[in-house]
This record gives sequence, structure tokens and C-alpha cells, in this order.
Amino acid sequence: MPSQQYVEGMQEMRSHFGSAADQWIKAIHDIYPEFAKINVEFPFGELYRRDIVDDKTRELCTVAALTVQGFALPELKVHVKGALNTGSRREEILEIITQMIAYCGFPGATNALLAAKEVFDEIDNASDVAPKS
Amino acid sequence: MPSQQYVEGMQEMRSHFGSAADQWIKAIHDIYPEFAKINVEFPFGELYRRDIVDDKTRELCTVAALTVQGFALPELKVHVKGALNTGSRREEILEIITQMIAYCGFPGATNALLAAKEVFDEIDNASDVAPKS
Amino acid sequence: MPSQQYVEGMQEMRSHFGSAADQWIKAIHDIYPEFAKINVEFPFGELYRRDIVDDKTRELCTVAALTVQGFALPELKVHVKGALNTGSRREEILEIITQMIAYCGFPGATNALLAAKEVFDEIDNASDVAPKS
Amino acid sequence: MPSQQYVEGMQEMRSHFGSAADQWIKAIHDIYPEFAKINVEFPFGELYRRDIVDDKTRELCTVAALTVQGFALPELKVHVKGALNTGSRREEILEIITQMIAYCGFPGATNALLAAKEVFDEIDNASDVAPKS
Amino acid sequence: MPSQQYVEGMQEMRSHFGSAADQWIKAIHDIYPEFAKINVEFPFGELYRRDIVDDKTRELCTVAALTVQGFALPELKVHVKGALNTGSRREEILEIITQMIAYCGFPGATNALLAAKEVFDEIDNASDVAPKS
Amino acid sequence: MPSQQYVEGMQEMRSHFGSAADQWIKAIHDIYPEFAKINVEFPFGELYRRDIVDDKTRELCTVAALTVQGFALPELKVHVKGALNTGSRREEILEIITQMIAYCGFPGATNALLAAKEVFDEIDNASDVAPKS
Repeated sequence: MPSQQYVEGMQEMRSHFGSAADQWIKAIHDIYPEFAKINVEFPFGELYRRDIVDDKTRELCTVAALTVQGFALPELKVHVKGALNTGSRREEILEIITQMIAYCGFPGATNALLAAKEVFDEIDNASDVAPKS
Repeated sequence: MPSQQYVEGMQEMRSHFGSAADQWIKAIHDIYPEFAKINVEFPFGELYRRDIVDDKTRELCTVAALTVQGFALPELKVHVKGALNTGSRREEILEIITQMIAYCGFPGATNALLAAKEVFDEIDNASDVAPKS
Repeated sequence: MPSQQYVEGMQEMRSHFGSAADQWIKAIHDIYPEFAKINVEFPFGELYRRDIVDDKTRELCTVAALTVQGFALPELKVHVKGALNTGSRREEILEIITQMIAYCGFPGATNALLAAKEVFDEIDNASDVAPKS
Repeated sequence: MPSQQYVEGMQEMRSHFGSAADQWIKAIHDIYPEFAKINVEFPFGELYRRDIVDDKTRELCTVAALTVQGFALPELKVHVKGALNTGSRREEILEIITQMIAYCGFPGATNALLAAKEVFDEIDNASDVAPKS
Repeated sequence: MPSQQYVEGMQEMRSHFGSAADQWIKAIHDIYPEFAKINVEFPFGELYRRDIVDDKTRELCTVAALTVQGFALPELKVHVKGALNTGSRREEILEIITQMIAYCGFPGATNALLAAKEVFDEIDNASDVAPKS
Repeated sequence: MPSQQYVEGMQEMRSHFGSAADQWIKAIHDIYPEFAKINVEFPFGELYRRDIVDDKTRELCTVAALTVQGFALPELKVHVKGALNTGSRREEILEIITQMIAYCGFPGATNALLAAKEVFDEIDNASDVAPKS
């Protein structure tokens, strides 16, 4: 039975990523449940739930961090969605990625820009096929 | 003669770091003037001057980025000061560094925490010796 | 004609990776023979052949190292096979990858977990289609 | 209207990468024009145009840098073309990548070697289908 | 009041690092208690306490990971002590660091070797001044 | 008894770094002889001795690589000397470090610039106290 921290962590995670949160954690849980448990309980059941910094700022900071790391494009795409869902406009996300040129150079920032574009396109394509009533 | 972009960049840089901006750039200029020129004109004369994202958020994103990079502690200390000067409380800076545990692990985040502490101590020690009128 | 160190290195390499060793080195040799020569002679003809640390521990250490590097997923997959072939159970490999969350954060560790899963699936799929006599 | 630095930067960029320069910058411009502006003006409109180091050496240094970074394979492929276009033979590029084994280990260098091979194959395949008059 | 996970985590941590565990955590706690809480509860109160992999192997894997990261020398020194305290001989630690040349090149491995030497010297110097009864 | 490759490697290494080569290798040898053996035999006894790329270009590529790595400042200082000893002017070294801003951002490039300055100062200070006959 999941801990209270896990339950609250999944709620927090859904408020950032929507139903993608459940898919992400299920995929990890199927490989190694201990990894999934930590992934939910620690960052989302504890860290992100503290209100010292608002979620919009937190997600932009994570976008910045994953941009300079360079290799974390799948996770960056998840957090670009998280940034949009916590109140950032697309232009703000692109501006923070552009700011990172100064801290990681063009290759890392370029790859992040292209990853953000993929997320925006997925959203636009999904809404294209949605019924427009 | 410095370009207008350079002059505006130095002004922007001083609004983040105070007189430390001039010291930093002078040290670099004494080694290689071209490096100093780019350092002022590009991030501060152009990037940071755009008002798409506020300076407080920008500085916290840079703190996040330098934390995960791990090796950039001198620059991180400069931007911890920049975060304080653009409106972040100490607790907000420490919270963002703590958030980075999830993206770079404990070693990088620990080193950043200790670097932030050094900045806070320098500020406290400087104000200790300042006249308290 | 290959050196004795090269011949012994290929033997060592095959004991870790099976026939994948020959395929890997052939692909590199076709591009630049000098690279392949060093790749066989130095880590496998010399380093891995010393019995100061057993091969199982060595391979788990390499899995740990490639997990935190983040960008080395093709090489990580090779060494997940190496870990299995030198006596690690799947759960041990997943546990070491999970341990790395503490040293490289979730993005690097998540990508490594997914890469390990791909290796396990390839093995399971290969044995599915194998004749079961 | 583009600045003079932008115009000169695009000329410099084309002398390294041919028509791929325009495609690369157009793709970035379509996502975020400010990123494209900086990408052209700063490294190519200013840095690469200084004749303190020749373009051949500059491109080989960039190949070295992107090899050790590990995650920047799309950009590495662009600069492998840049190295060829500024006078390096294939063997020189492969030798510098091999040299990087000593500074980033085998995984980063192997991935760079495979990326260079992809560029060489693209060139060879393009000339195969070209009319041979 | 500390959680049970925290209490068990401190016990686990002491079994790896001796009294250095308390000093390390106290220093972090004085800066930001939330960071210290996570540092004890997650890796030591949960992860390291699982017996899927023995502590000796875990510590050598962490030594490998911190070697390739390159910037984490203070943490590496802590885990070199952890490796000694969980049953590794000095030669085994040096051999794993040497193995990492193949995965991170000479600079990272050299810095790790020098850091391990500092730990060994501290131990030797401490025992020199200890009473030899 | 050292191999022929080792003897030739030390000669090559001295041609890059002068007597610093012997000091560097002795320090490593005193910690772990196997590490020193590989350090001499592989990069210097084999790699750097091939004449496909000249030593000046090789050293500038290594300066570029160590700049973007960020954490390898002791090794960078050694190779700044290596670059000077193989024919680069100070300005060329500073220009390549400045070029790296585009590939690793300002923090890594700034730290490299300051490290190069330290090497130049050491050389200038050494020649100040040398007899000027």
C-alpha cells in the first residue's frame, strides 16, 4: 500500500504534468518499483510541495538545469509541459533556454530549443484533431 | 571606445552584482579584452535586458544551472549575490539549490549549498564591521 | 599482425560481451583502425585483465559510471550485458542504477533504467524465438 | 533588418558549412528569432572572423570540444563538415577524435567517431547519386 | 523530532563514514535543515539499507561515479573513506579509479587518484600521532 | 623495467611539458604505478607520436577539450604549457579559450582563462628571477 507521501506526491506530479505523470511513473514502476517509489515520494511528495518558491519558478529553474545538462532531453520535454502547466508562456520558456547559451554554450541550448519545439508541436497537433465545438 | 551595447551591458551587470561587476570584468579584460567585450555585450547588453522574464526569475534559473554544472562555483557565488540583489530571499536560493538534488544528485547540490553559505557569510561579516548608525 | 596484448584483449572482451565484442570492434575498426587497436589493447588487454578487482564488481562500477555520465547509453547497454555475463542479477544492476539517483539525479538514472530495460527485453525476445528443444 | 554583424556572420557561417548554415539558422529562427540572432552574430559575426587562429585549427578545436561534451552529436556532425570545408582531411578529424579518448574516455570518443562516419557516408552517398559528367 | 527513517539513516551513514557522518550532516543542517533531512533519509535511510547489493560494492560504485563526474572531489574523499570502512583495500580503490580512465579520460581519473591519496595520507598521519600501545 | 613504449612516451611527454612531465608522472607513480604506466604509454607513447596532426594543433585541441570539461584546471594548466612549448603564442591560446564560450558558456571559459593567466604569470615570474646575462 502506498505511503501518504506517495499519494500526495502523485497528486503534486499530476498538477505539473497531467496524465503524463501516471504514464511516466507506471513505465518506471514496471522496471523497478523502488525507483518509482523514490521518484514520487522525494521530489514530488516532499520537495515540490513546499511553498517557499512557487511552482512556475521551480519549473523554469528545472528547464534551465536540464538545458545545461544536455543529455536529459526526454526529461526536459516533460518539464517544458510542466512549465506550461504551472503558468509560463511559451516565450518565457524559450527565453530561459536562450539565457542558458551563456552558461552551457550553443549545443546544449540548441538541443533544448528543438526539444521545446517538439512539445509545442505535440500540443498544437493534439488540439488540431480535437473537436472544435 | 566601448559600444553602446557595452555601456548598457555594464549598467545591467551592475544592477545585478554591484561593484563586483566592474572588478570581475576588469580582471578578465586585463587577460584578454575580447573575452571581456563579449561577456558584457552578449549576456548583459542584450540577453538580460529583455523584459520577457523578470530578473529575479532569471537569476534563480542561473543559480539552478550553475548548481547542476558542478564545476562553476566562483560563478555560482557571483549569481547568488545576483539573486539576492534582484529580490530573492536567502531561503528561496537555498530551496532552489535543494530542488537541484533531484536533477544533479547530492554532490553538485552540496557544493552549491556550501558556496551559497560562503556568500551569506561574506555579507554578514561585511555588515558586522560596517558602522551601525 | 595484432599484438599479443590485442589478442588477449579480444579474449577478455569476449568473456564480458560475447560475440557483441567482435561486432563492436569491427564497426570501429572499419572507421579508424587506430581507435579499435587502443580500445582492445588498453582497457581489455591490460586493465580488466588484472585480478585486483573481480569482473562482476568492475562491470557494476562501469554501469555506475556510465549512468552518471548520462550521454553514454549505447555503451551502457553493452556494459549491462557485461554485468549480466560476469555474474550480476538483473536486480543488482537496477539497484546500482537506482543508487546513482543520489549522485546524478533522476534524469541520468531514469535514462539508464530505460536502457537496462531495453537490454533485458532484447535478451527475453531472443530467447522467445530460440528453439526450445 | 539584420545588422551588419549578422550579415557578415552568415557569410562566415556559409564558408564553414555551406548551405547547411542557412537551413540550421532558419530552423532556429522559426522557433525563436532572438536565439538565431545571437547564434549568427556572436560566434560567426565576431569570434570566428578574427584571424588570430586559422579556421582549420578552430574547427578541429570545436570537434575536440564537442567530442568530450558527449551529448552534442548533431552539432558535432555540423562541425565535422566545417572541419572538412576548412581544409582538414578525414584522417585528421578521426585522429583528433581518437586523441580525445585520453580526455573523455571511450564512450564519448566512440560516439563522436560514429557521428563522423555518418557525415562521411552522407557525403559519399551524395556524390554517388550526383551526375558524373 | 526526527523520523524513524532519519534515525536509521544516521546509523547507516555512521557505519560508512564514522563520526565524519555527523560532522557532514551538521554542517549542512546549519545551512538548510531540509537539505540535511533529505540527505539522511533518502540515500542512507532507504537506498543503502537495502541488502540487494553489499555495502562494499555500493561504495566502489560510488567511487567510480564520483571519479567520472570530476567536480565532486570533497564527496569522493568521503566515499573513499566509506570504501575503506566497508571492506575495500586501498589497492582496490586505486584500481577502480584507474579503470575509470577508460570512461572519463585521464583528467578526471588523475584528480580522483590525488584525492584518494589525500585520504590515505590523512589516515596515516592520524595513526602516526595516535598512541601506539 | 620500462617498456620501449614507456621510454618513448616519456621522451614525447618531455617535448611537450619539459621537466614538469617527470614531476607529474613521479607523483602519480608514487600513488599507483599502473596508472602512471598507462598515462605514459598510451597517450604519449602511442597517440601523440603519430604525425597525422602536428603537436601544436593537438595541444590547442586539448586546451579546447579541457576548457569545456570545466573541472580539469590542473590538467589544463599543464596543457597551456604544452601549447606554448609546441609553438602557440599566448594570444592563440586565449583565442581558443574565448572560442569555447560558444560551446561551454562563460563559466567554463572564464575558469580556463584565469588558469591560463596563472601559467603565464608563473612563466613571467620565473624569468624575472632568472639571471639575465
